[in-house]
Amino acid sequence: MNDLQTPPPPAGQVNRYRFNLGSHPQDVLITGPVPPLRSILDETPDPPSRVLIVCDEHTLPPARAIATPEETPFCVLEPGETRKNWEGVERILRRAHDAGLGRDSLFIACGGGVVSDLTGFAASVYMRGVRLCVVSTSLLGMVDAAVGGKTGCDLFGVKNLAGSFYPARLVYLPLDTLATLPPAEWKSGMAELIKTAILIPDGEDLLSLLQAGPELPRPSLRTAVARAVAYKGRIVEEDPRETGGRRVLLNLGHSFGHALESSSGLGRISHGEAVAWGIARACELGQSLGISPPRRVRGILTLLQNHGYQTAAPHPLMGEPARFIEALARDKKNRRGKAVFVVPSARGAEVLPEPPGEELLLKICGITGR
Amino acid sequence: MNDLQTPPPPAGQVNRYRFNLGSHPQDVLITGPVPPLRSILDETPDPPSRVLIVCDEHTLPPARAIATPEETPFCVLEPGETRKNWEGVERILRRAHDAGLGRDSLFIACGGGVVSDLTGFAASVYMRGVRLCVVSTSLLGMVDAAVGGKTGCDLFGVKNLAGSFYPARLVYLPLDTLATLPPAEWKSGMAELIKTAILIPDGEDLLSLLQAGPELPRPSLRTAVARAVAYKGRIVEEDPRETGGRRVLLNLGHSFGHALESSSGLGRISHGEAVAWGIARACELGQSLGISPPRRVRGILTLLQNHGYQTAAPHPLMGEPARFIEALARDKKNRRGKAVFVVPSARGAEVLPEPPGEELLLKICGITGR
Repeated sequence: MNDLQTPPPPAGQVNRYRFNLGSHPQDVLITGPVPPLRSILDETPDPPSRVLIVCDEHTLPPARAIATPEETPFCVLEPGETRKNWEGVERILRRAHDAGLGRDSLFIACGGGVVSDLTGFAASVYMRGVRLCVVSTSLLGMVDAAVGGKTGCDLFGVKNLAGSFYPARLVYLPLDTLATLPPAEWKSGMAELIKTAILIPDGEDLLSLLQAGPELPRPSLRTAVARAVAYKGRIVEEDPRETGGRRVLLNLGHSFGHALESSSGLGRISHGEAVAWGIARACELGQSLGISPPRRVRGILTLLQNHGYQTAAPHPLMGEPARFIEALARDKKNRRGKAVFVVPSARGAEVLPEPPGEELLLKICGITGR
Repeated sequence: MNDLQTPPPPAGQVNRYRFNLGSHPQDVLITGPVPPLRSILDETPDPPSRVLIVCDEHTLPPARAIATPEETPFCVLEPGETRKNWEGVERILRRAHDAGLGRDSLFIACGGGVVSDLTGFAASVYMRGVRLCVVSTSLLGMVDAAVGGKTGCDLFGVKNLAGSFYPARLVYLPLDTLATLPPAEWKSGMAELIKTAILIPDGEDLLSLLQAGPELPRPSLRTAVARAVAYKGRIVEEDPRETGGRRVLLNLGHSFGHALESSSGLGRISHGEAVAWGIARACELGQSLGISPPRRVRGILTLLQNHGYQTAAPHPLMGEPARFIEALARDKKNRRGKAVFVVPSARGAEVLPEPPGEELLLKICGITGR
């Protein structure tokens, strides 16, 4: 789907970023190939005594490019959003324990957002915290999950009900791995990339670049990933633990999206699909309130549709409206018991000072007859 | 067993400490009675939208002195060391979720070390972290678990294999609750108090105070708890995440003690019993290496025996020696794969630069014929 057959960048091209996230810096390296273990250890101050590589059945090939299971212990998870639960975390902890890893060990997550979220959570709690390196192999991971430091697993059917703020010291984004990314996963990551392009106050050029549709040549891909990383890193630096400030902007589309994921039954709809639908809802909400300019809203909706996303409400997989509404009210981003909503503005996006009335929310989500 | 019938201190006497533990301060208040919810909220900047009180079946009475289950949601855990597992954490998370608690909530742990460790861990991961207040109702909790910020639960039969560094903002040590503490729990906490008295470089007066045996009049109890809190708080301030430095001193007796707890089967021996036995081992180890003066070792062993602790090796509940040795080698406090040992010195204690040889360890632990 995505055009990665364009000539490769100069050998060894690496975009390198450093973000200060509270107690320690996070280094993010956009590379072509997957880094071998030797390179990872070279970048790691105070080398670990032991290493555990965590991947899933789909990301075993890139994980083996880091090191072989003969060289270092592996934990291979079952793939998929529905496996993002405590059982997955426990599996990592058990493998680490069985392999005799101590507190000065390093966990390397090799995979998409699910693998990095679970491995990050496991790293944050194993013996009260071991070091973490993330090698992100999905577009979603590269533009969202890998940078920043949120970890988590689902509990009781609620997304990321348990988790931590635990930034990986080292994050690799090896663009080569995207060449084999399944179209559905590509689409999932693209929603976060579009979200970021909306958020960046001078992001019109990035939006234009994405208007071309899902076919993204390698140089554009590197540019897009680099801009998303730089933006997200800056926002997260301001507020590593999401206690206030601009970080909540990253939630654009997510209140509606998470509620859709919950009410449809976790795993039935991809995170990206849900976020894209949520962005469409945020656009309509912002326009209803006179905050999002109609021309901008039209541009965003067209962009989402060009990428094949469902933008109409209600979503066909929404499930029971009551469950959707309840999930929306319970969103983690609640402040003082009130759900927080982000909508596109003339440039970038802004947070609503008060949640909108339920009647408006219901209308925007296509829920009638209550 | 303990004499708490002495005249009460002046009404409202409170010893107050503030420790800086990384991202935020921890306030510790030694009081007489259990604080009512109103007092807790008065001490909490930026009041929480919702509160969850966590206790166990034994600490329901003091928990009800904070607030009633009609006023605020309760989560009542099954009591005991063997319940310090993920199921306990999950139970707290489920109760919080069912009660609709958001990210700006407050968890109040009311109980001993197990309740505060589990509640602290749950608070650190619920929605990636909510606020925490600990009302400690056991001597062990007051002199050890409540101050500092270590949380955790056992996994795969390993003590605290999962956990976090997550200091409660507010810690109450209501001495009145100790009046009804069962003798076994009193003995459990006393081991940590003796450990602290050994560690404090000018702790001879505290050791003398404890020489009187387990009967401790209220003024002495307040003095002892206050000195233990002040010492532990200072140590933890230097090194909130136990990455080096003096904090490892607090591990005196714990390498041997944890291994004993593991090999005997979790829950068969109390933490305090295990630590006391471990302190005796550390004394013998230090004396063998010429670090612990024989006179000091004799004094410590006599003190432990006066308090009814088992100091001889092997411990009758040790179980399979191979399992004990394995647990000792795997201790969390490993540095670069080597177990860390703390032994009493002429004043205070010190860390061995290298672990002792296996032959010496076996001898000290009373393991023969391997």
